[in-house]
Amino acid sequence: MKIIILAGGEGKRMWPIQTDKYLIPFLGQPLISYTLKRIADGINFDEVIIVTKEASRDQVSQIASSLGIKHKIAIQEEPKGMADALLSAKEDINGEILVINAEDVLEERVYQDVLTTASDTQSDVVLSGLQVKSYFPGGYLEVKRDRIQGIVEKPGKGNEPSDLVKLVVDYFRDGGKLVSYLEEASSEKDDVYEVALAKICDSCDVRFIRYNGVWIPLKYPWQILETGAYFLSTLEQNISPGSKVSDKAIIEGNVKIEEGAKVFEGAVIKGPCYIGKNVIVGNNTMIRESILEEGVVTGFNCDITRSYIGRNSWFHTNYVGDSVIEGDFGMGSGAVLANLRLDDATIRIGDEKIDTGRTKLGTVAGKGSRVGVNASIMPGVRIGVNCLIGPGVVLHEDVKDNTRILVKQQYQVSKRTPSLTSYDQFRKKL
Amino acid sequence: MKIIILAGGEGKRMWPIQTDKYLIPFLGQPLISYTLKRIADGINFDEVIIVTKEASRDQVSQIASSLGIKHKIAIQEEPKGMADALLSAKEDINGEILVINAEDVLEERVYQDVLTTASDTQSDVVLSGLQVKSYFPGGYLEVKRDRIQGIVEKPGKGNEPSDLVKLVVDYFRDGGKLVSYLEEASSEKDDVYEVALAKICDSCDVRFIRYNGVWIPLKYPWQILETGAYFLSTLEQNISPGSKVSDKAIIEGNVKIEEGAKVFEGAVIKGPCYIGKNVIVGNNTMIRESILEEGVVTGFNCDITRSYIGRNSWFHTNYVGDSVIEGDFGMGSGAVLANLRLDDATIRIGDEKIDTGRTKLGTVAGKGSRVGVNASIMPGVRIGVNCLIGPGVVLHEDVKDNTRILVKQQYQVSKRTPSLTSYDQFRKKL
Amino acid sequence: MKIIILAGGEGKRMWPIQTDKYLIPFLGQPLISYTLKRIADGINFDEVIIVTKEASRDQVSQIASSLGIKHKIAIQEEPKGMADALLSAKEDINGEILVINAEDVLEERVYQDVLTTASDTQSDVVLSGLQVKSYFPGGYLEVKRDRIQGIVEKPGKGNEPSDLVKLVVDYFRDGGKLVSYLEEASSEKDDVYEVALAKICDSCDVRFIRYNGVWIPLKYPWQILETGAYFLSTLEQNISPGSKVSDKAIIEGNVKIEEGAKVFEGAVIKGPCYIGKNVIVGNNTMIRESILEEGVVTGFNCDITRSYIGRNSWFHTNYVGDSVIEGDFGMGSGAVLANLRLDDATIRIGDEKIDTGRTKLGTVAGKGSRVGVNASIMPGVRIGVNCLIGPGVVLHEDVKDNTRILVKQQYQVSKRTPSLTSYDQFRKKL
Repeated sequence: MKIIILAGGEGKRMWPIQTDKYLIPFLGQPLISYTLKRIADGINFDEVIIVTKEASRDQVSQIASSLGIKHKIAIQEEPKGMADALLSAKEDINGEILVINAEDVLEERVYQDVLTTASDTQSDVVLSGLQVKSYFPGGYLEVKRDRIQGIVEKPGKGNEPSDLVKLVVDYFRDGGKLVSYLEEASSEKDDVYEVALAKICDSCDVRFIRYNGVWIPLKYPWQILETGAYFLSTLEQNISPGSKVSDKAIIEGNVKIEEGAKVFEGAVIKGPCYIGKNVIVGNNTMIRESILEEGVVTGFNCDITRSYIGRNSWFHTNYVGDSVIEGDFGMGSGAVLANLRLDDATIRIGDEKIDTGRTKLGTVAGKGSRVGVNASIMPGVRIGVNCLIGPGVVLHEDVKDNTRILVKQQYQVSKRTPSLTSYDQFRKKL
Repeated sequence: MKIIILAGGEGKRMWPIQTDKYLIPFLGQPLISYTLKRIADGINFDEVIIVTKEASRDQVSQIASSLGIKHKIAIQEEPKGMADALLSAKEDINGEILVINAEDVLEERVYQDVLTTASDTQSDVVLSGLQVKSYFPGGYLEVKRDRIQGIVEKPGKGNEPSDLVKLVVDYFRDGGKLVSYLEEASSEKDDVYEVALAKICDSCDVRFIRYNGVWIPLKYPWQILETGAYFLSTLEQNISPGSKVSDKAIIEGNVKIEEGAKVFEGAVIKGPCYIGKNVIVGNNTMIRESILEEGVVTGFNCDITRSYIGRNSWFHTNYVGDSVIEGDFGMGSGAVLANLRLDDATIRIGDEKIDTGRTKLGTVAGKGSRVGVNASIMPGVRIGVNCLIGPGVVLHEDVKDNTRILVKQQYQVSKRTPSLTSYDQFRKKL
Repeated sequence: MKIIILAGGEGKRMWPIQTDKYLIPFLGQPLISYTLKRIADGINFDEVIIVTKEASRDQVSQIASSLGIKHKIAIQEEPKGMADALLSAKEDINGEILVINAEDVLEERVYQDVLTTASDTQSDVVLSGLQVKSYFPGGYLEVKRDRIQGIVEKPGKGNEPSDLVKLVVDYFRDGGKLVSYLEEASSEKDDVYEVALAKICDSCDVRFIRYNGVWIPLKYPWQILETGAYFLSTLEQNISPGSKVSDKAIIEGNVKIEEGAKVFEGAVIKGPCYIGKNVIVGNNTMIRESILEEGVVTGFNCDITRSYIGRNSWFHTNYVGDSVIEGDFGMGSGAVLANLRLDDATIRIGDEKIDTGRTKLGTVAGKGSRVGVNASIMPGVRIGVNCLIGPGVVLHEDVKDNTRILVKQQYQVSKRTPSLTSYDQFRKKL
């Protein structure tokens, strides 16, 4: 049996995060490595085929090799959807296959359940689904007992045929047959794969597996917070002997501190937290429920809460609440990433006003951006790649990539007569 | 003998504080409860008649009951002055009475002195007064030896008949006679009571008692700071076993910490301070000479000095100096309530430029208001009820109730070329 | 032999620093006292002649007396250059003399080397020079073996006759002869002394001494940081028994703390640092590699790094990075002296864009100025004497003496409907 791992896609909705989702690091490891580990640990297979883009070939291959996984890389030229991705690997698709997404956070038992069902029932196809409470923009399954009778991709709220959202853990007994269906299917929308699956349902035995474990979708960048929270929940306290933690710092709960990290006097780290390699946690800084990837520097007196901080970002007396920072990001003293609307409403994003459902959400920032001293970024604002938000700016709206914004102040300038209060008088008032 | 407690009045000068003065809590107890306790502890009486408004009836009655004080409530329909208040209770006013204000902070010996003098001299009326150094807008007594010969209400600066301001600790041997005088008196100003008293002086033996103890008037909201300072001065160190104080916090001097309060690591509380029920003092926060009523939350790294913080207010990395916050108030990270003019002048309030005589005074804020991140409120500004002061606002003037103020910034927007400095270079510069 | 110390000059380039360079205190002592000590400790002489201005006479004389140095004061009426300064003292200039600058930071062995060479070689004149790597606006020596053949004052970059800059440690066997040359020399530029020296080179034996020790020029005010860093490098840990350092403060490295200083709980001082007399280091404040002269007060939670803080300045929750503060200066809570450009460029000063060569430089501030709460001062800005920079100002340009700058904000004002979130809901979100 072959495992087909789909590691591609454009992720426009992930702007301003540049890194492909499956390569975003969590606790020092890219997301795809968790998927590969689950496969290696949980199921038997002959070979893994990873479909990705040329630019990621080496990195992806190295990750698989470092985990001892026998694999092949297939290249998808352009990000044109799941059917196209599979057809990019069609030469290797034959016999039994299991198709999964590289970036989905799932429990490995769903793979096992699908494969066991395939083996037990000898069905042609086994798909899995998960019950959702509110509309999710994915594929919905029409299920009758343990058989799937149809699939509808993104039906729109109110048009769902069921409350069962399809996962991407798709077993096919005959991969070659899937390829034929995919080559024949056509659609004007981005749902060729689902159209093909619907046709397969008409003619084959398509079995349904209900899954009710962990499932963390990653469609929007703020969902990196949920993904991060999941990984944090898996931590135990683990302080590397190669790190240097002041005995005047406070480490509470499940905090993992990697090699080369330094935690200075008066710092407080309240778990779960991940403090990556060579991270510096400055004096009097407080970190709570956050991930600080490799090389992050928090200077004096920061307050970082429930945030994801990507590599090599640096801070200095800042409040960073419920924020996603991709990396190489810097903030001047006194700048604040606000995370709570003063009217307490849920936070909506961009011109489209996408409702995140969250009452607490800070900034989402792309790589290489800087925020000046005493700047204030409002909840839910997205800062593009390589932006400069000047000192004192109060930023209410998204900022496109490569933008520099400085505030223009107007002044009232006059002559100052010397102060009448001597310093000694002042000092008495203290 | 009956005690008539006047718990009414409008207090327009107290804006934006909504709570009636006698109900403002200090150290967890409304002001009137201190008055009631003084009476219960210090003097003998038959019954207390509390004149208040309908809306306060239940609360006032509960307070009196909880102190085991036999009392009646009389309702004053509208706040029309002291004579009207007494006439609202006229059915119960007969025989010996002692009239006092619910909100005055005094020492109980003034009650005892008045009553002892009444008993010793068998005078018809005993009034008390206190020497003032500068003009105070109250009633002034004309005194000849130990007899009072006249009373002038608010004579205006320079027209005072003496330097003796009348307190409201007024003994009448015949309450019914007072009622008659009040019913006959009339005035175009709000001084019917004083007009009646002046008439009584003409025909009766009105004895004078000089008082030189504690007396803290509460006419303007910033005087809540003085009232608070008085109550703080009565504290001893007292940390409830039902509170949770980190052994890495520092508690110095006379600090009272109530049940359910939590004080986190690195916090410093320098007495005298009152930390009410369920208050949270966050990491690295410093509280000095302040009152934090029930349910206040100071997050990380606040600096609260010589302030009165009413119930359920919350802070997060703020400086709050010499401020009065009624309650349900919130501040975003980096917002500052400044308390010292850069020109070191005394602080004047509102359009009328009322001189507070204080060189240090911060904000006076009504209930339910919010101040955004990095906002700056100038010394002596009053923020109305339910206001929203946006992030980055520099507020120089009073804000009316229910107002939302956002700053409109102008920007210079340009394209940013990528930074030339690599992160490693930056890191070396640290 | 007489030592002629030149303690004059205008120092226009030092604006906004008012204090004459030789009187700027470092570690509690004015710069001139270090020069006097070097002389007293290192060489034999008969008398010191200090040429200074009338206004400095008493202070300079007291400093010399307190060091037990036999001296005379000569007054230079106006700051008209080095030749004029020497001629102001001409009555006392005869026989062997050594001319030095009051403010130069040098090692005393250069004096010894010059005098030893004078004694060994019996030369008429001995001058010393130092090799520079890049252009320095001083006098350049034309040297052939150990003889000086000419001197060119400020030749301009690219026109240097050598890479040897002349120090002011000038020995003359016959002071009277120098006076004659000076009286005869004339120049349209400010280089009469160098013109006279060049003439002397034509007719006398002028010997050269190469110096390769410490030499810290002080032409621009930001060089006070380099001068300060030098003095800090000479410190050892030394905490006065007359100071009061909390056992909950952290003192690391070579920190000198003077009498009367107080260091509060949670403060961190990372050496080398100088904490002057009566300085207050507030709770949770961090001081690194800085000089705090007498009477400085840092309130709660400051972060002062690589800075020179002159007497009686006060701070309160500020970031002060790589800054020079002359004294009597005050900052409101949340104000920041930024020290790093967001584009990482080297910092240039004023309209002339003088390149400091530094990537980190904060503010240079004159005496008596104030910076309001949440103001942001950009890297390399000079604030004049007695200025007031209002709250919330983002200051990008130099500010002239006696200037008051307030920001004019525009607002969007609307009615606020009450918040829908109760405090309890808010609290749950915390």
